[in-house]
Amino acid sequence: MPLPFEHLTSAQQLSKEVVADVFAVADEMEKIWSSGKRSKLLEDKIIALLFYEPSSRTMLSFQAAVQGLSAGMELAHGRQNSSMEKGESIEDTIRMVARYSDLIVMRHPEAGSADKAASVSHVPFINAGDGGNQHPTQSLLDLYTIKKEKGSLDGLHVAFACDPLHSRTIRSLALALSQYNDIRFTFISPDSLRASSDMITELKNNSVSVEESTDLSVGLDTDILYMNRLQEERFEDHKEFEKYRDQYVLTADMLKGKDTLVMDPLPRVDEIATDVDDLPNAVYFDQARNGVLVRMALMAMLLGKA
Amino acid sequence: MPLPFEHLTSAQQLSKEVVADVFAVADEMEKIWSSGKRSKLLEDKIIALLFYEPSSRTMLSFQAAVQGLSAGMELAHGRQNSSMEKGESIEDTIRMVARYSDLIVMRHPEAGSADKAASVSHVPFINAGDGGNQHPTQSLLDLYTIKKEKGSLDGLHVAFACDPLHSRTIRSLALALSQYNDIRFTFISPDSLRASSDMITELKNNSVSVEESTDLSVGLDTDILYMNRLQEERFEDHKEFEKYRDQYVLTADMLKGKDTLVMDPLPRVDEIATDVDDLPNAVYFDQARNGVLVRMALMAMLLGKA
Amino acid sequence: MPLPFEHLTSAQQLSKEVVADVFAVADEMEKIWSSGKRSKLLEDKIIALLFYEPSSRTMLSFQAAVQGLSAGMELAHGRQNSSMEKGESIEDTIRMVARYSDLIVMRHPEAGSADKAASVSHVPFINAGDGGNQHPTQSLLDLYTIKKEKGSLDGLHVAFACDPLHSRTIRSLALALSQYNDIRFTFISPDSLRASSDMITELKNNSVSVEESTDLSVGLDTDILYMNRLQEERFEDHKEFEKYRDQYVLTADMLKGKDTLVMDPLPRVDEIATDVDDLPNAVYFDQARNGVLVRMALMAMLLGKA
Repeated sequence: MPLPFEHLTSAQQLSKEVVADVFAVADEMEKIWSSGKRSKLLEDKIIALLFYEPSSRTMLSFQAAVQGLSAGMELAHGRQNSSMEKGESIEDTIRMVARYSDLIVMRHPEAGSADKAASVSHVPFINAGDGGNQHPTQSLLDLYTIKKEKGSLDGLHVAFACDPLHSRTIRSLALALSQYNDIRFTFISPDSLRASSDMITELKNNSVSVEESTDLSVGLDTDILYMNRLQEERFEDHKEFEKYRDQYVLTADMLKGKDTLVMDPLPRVDEIATDVDDLPNAVYFDQARNGVLVRMALMAMLLGKA
Repeated sequence: MPLPFEHLTSAQQLSKEVVADVFAVADEMEKIWSSGKRSKLLEDKIIALLFYEPSSRTMLSFQAAVQGLSAGMELAHGRQNSSMEKGESIEDTIRMVARYSDLIVMRHPEAGSADKAASVSHVPFINAGDGGNQHPTQSLLDLYTIKKEKGSLDGLHVAFACDPLHSRTIRSLALALSQYNDIRFTFISPDSLRASSDMITELKNNSVSVEESTDLSVGLDTDILYMNRLQEERFEDHKEFEKYRDQYVLTADMLKGKDTLVMDPLPRVDEIATDVDDLPNAVYFDQARNGVLVRMALMAMLLGKA
Repeated sequence: MPLPFEHLTSAQQLSKEVVADVFAVADEMEKIWSSGKRSKLLEDKIIALLFYEPSSRTMLSFQAAVQGLSAGMELAHGRQNSSMEKGESIEDTIRMVARYSDLIVMRHPEAGSADKAASVSHVPFINAGDGGNQHPTQSLLDLYTIKKEKGSLDGLHVAFACDPLHSRTIRSLALALSQYNDIRFTFISPDSLRASSDMITELKNNSVSVEESTDLSVGLDTDILYMNRLQEERFEDHKEFEKYRDQYVLTADMLKGKDTLVMDPLPRVDEIATDVDDLPNAVYFDQARNGVLVRMALMAMLLGKA
């Protein structure tokens, strides 16, 4: 199943067709994995994981995907890229690594770095997060989790809490979901963290029904309540961060008798009490496994092996 | 050979039966390794190595064990775990990693972190050191080395020098050995670094004969002289550390005509002169290889493949 | 094809015979790689990569070589080696790692560390750079690139710019090339960065014709123009570094109608304009791939598998 692109840098590339194709391959990956085997699909390939920003979650997930496909792994991680420290451009790093890898995955703190990398890469490239800009495989795993749990991506009512203003994850997922039919969103936040009017306009242009609320309980009667932690690094002022941190906390009590699915991109900080973890509503740890499956699918497809 | 536990977090789990079973499998691992092959036992498994505290020795040993079993490896290391930096609990990290690994090994600076991890892990978990608390695979490799060299773990006279007070390694090994018959220990140290009375009482309750001395030469007429460096990080005051550092130094001269085995958990600093290295008494570098073998055995057994 | 040494620590070991033998094996490696396969030559071996100095370029290249040979990989990297931090000597680290690896590659900031390591290693050892001292696989990949592009290592005129004084790479390559017949060098630099008279004397003793110039355009009429960036870490004074940094910059305009090959050990900073990248003269990114091939060849030969 060929993809209509060589590099995945942005969630905007995730058309309905692409999403459906990746999910079909991810389902195949799950069958192999569930049988207790590692796929040999990429045993002759070498994949470079360049993590120039700490991100143990995403890095381990991509490592699992590489290992699950039996590919060889090159791994660079740590705050410093020694070559970049010596003044090398992102483009030169990629030109070089592309000479001895079959596929490159990069996480980089600089917004726009993924486009720079993709523009010169002779091998398929996957953006694993470029600063506050894009992290398309996160959107893909969120969509995959919803599809598996709900059976369809049409006709959903999704609430997003607690910080729709600063969250790259929420923005990307909302835009990706807005392609589907009969979608309704409720953004839940304190007044000062309301979703940007730009985003709301864009969603409405995509025929999505959009509401806003300051009340977390509104989210309990939706199909999906997508929680997110406040990301301290997105706030200029530490006090401001502290002020909002504990404003919305989802507990098991609140979910009594509700069947809304609870999602969270993780790491979870205080936004979901741990007593929620064992409820059937909680699928946030399952998202982690789904992330590996869609990343396996994507890598296999970009290398023409699926 | 099934183990009576799913997770190994503490040396107290190493009963005589467990020890004997692990050694039988480690002997098999050695046969494969000595034939110049890598075992394929875990070729369909993926093992996560989470090293949140620097420990190149233990980390490389576990990597060798993973590679020796042909398993896929996920590796996170460095002082920072980016998710934990963002406020994630150890439990959440493990819940997530357990979704895409078949076994988890963790080193963490916090005492008690291993129990937290094991309490939520859906896959087998091995503690590779949690602060000053436990490091059970170190005890296992020490026991394996003694067994290979002496043929039995019964009837041994073991001297421990230089710092029985602060050493987690000595405490764990002494307690593990105290299960065997007819064991005699001599703790050698300056007065201020004497073994804790708690530990001595516990050993005596296990029918071990315990002596103490300030004289290193007493250790030369034992079956095993187990040396350890002072660990600077266990001293509050740097001057205190310096005062004791060079107090006991074992040299080749002292070992003339003696057949006591010299062990050391490494790294060695000044406690053993390098002229000891080539004597037949010195087995401390062989301990490193034995460490890989028992770790291979343990991983294979926890995954039901041995 | 056996090599006349067990450990590669210095470019002086790269005799014409060694170079020819390594290249023959590297050509075989290229055939396998070009066919889209990973070689299985070292599938039963485990290779330790110890990178105690940041060097993402060399580290990734060695990782690619390990993966290209299907060997198991042990990886330690980061500024700190925790064991060394605890006072362990390089020799002890190597003695230990040699107990559970079939081959060791080490990068270390200390000049002379490679000889220390090789002196105690029971398994083959490759120096991947020891401070400003030696980095023999860099010389090997430079020679291999020249041989592939020019067909022969005899009869060449090579210009070296911009900093022949401080560059370990230039010194090593010049000395390695000086073994061949009919070699002519032109060193191009500002007066204060002129090649050391020691080096020039040594080259002349090897019957090399040596010229010097301050004019970069002189290098355009040679067989090979070997550029290098100034390495800030080699200058004591930051201002001095800044003064020379932009003194020589090679551009596409300058290369019009010229067929000199442009090489660079990378990372490139400002010494080559990016408009040179797409010219047929530019082979500096191909050097990266050649580096993997010669490293694969070397590892296979040192392990008696080629």
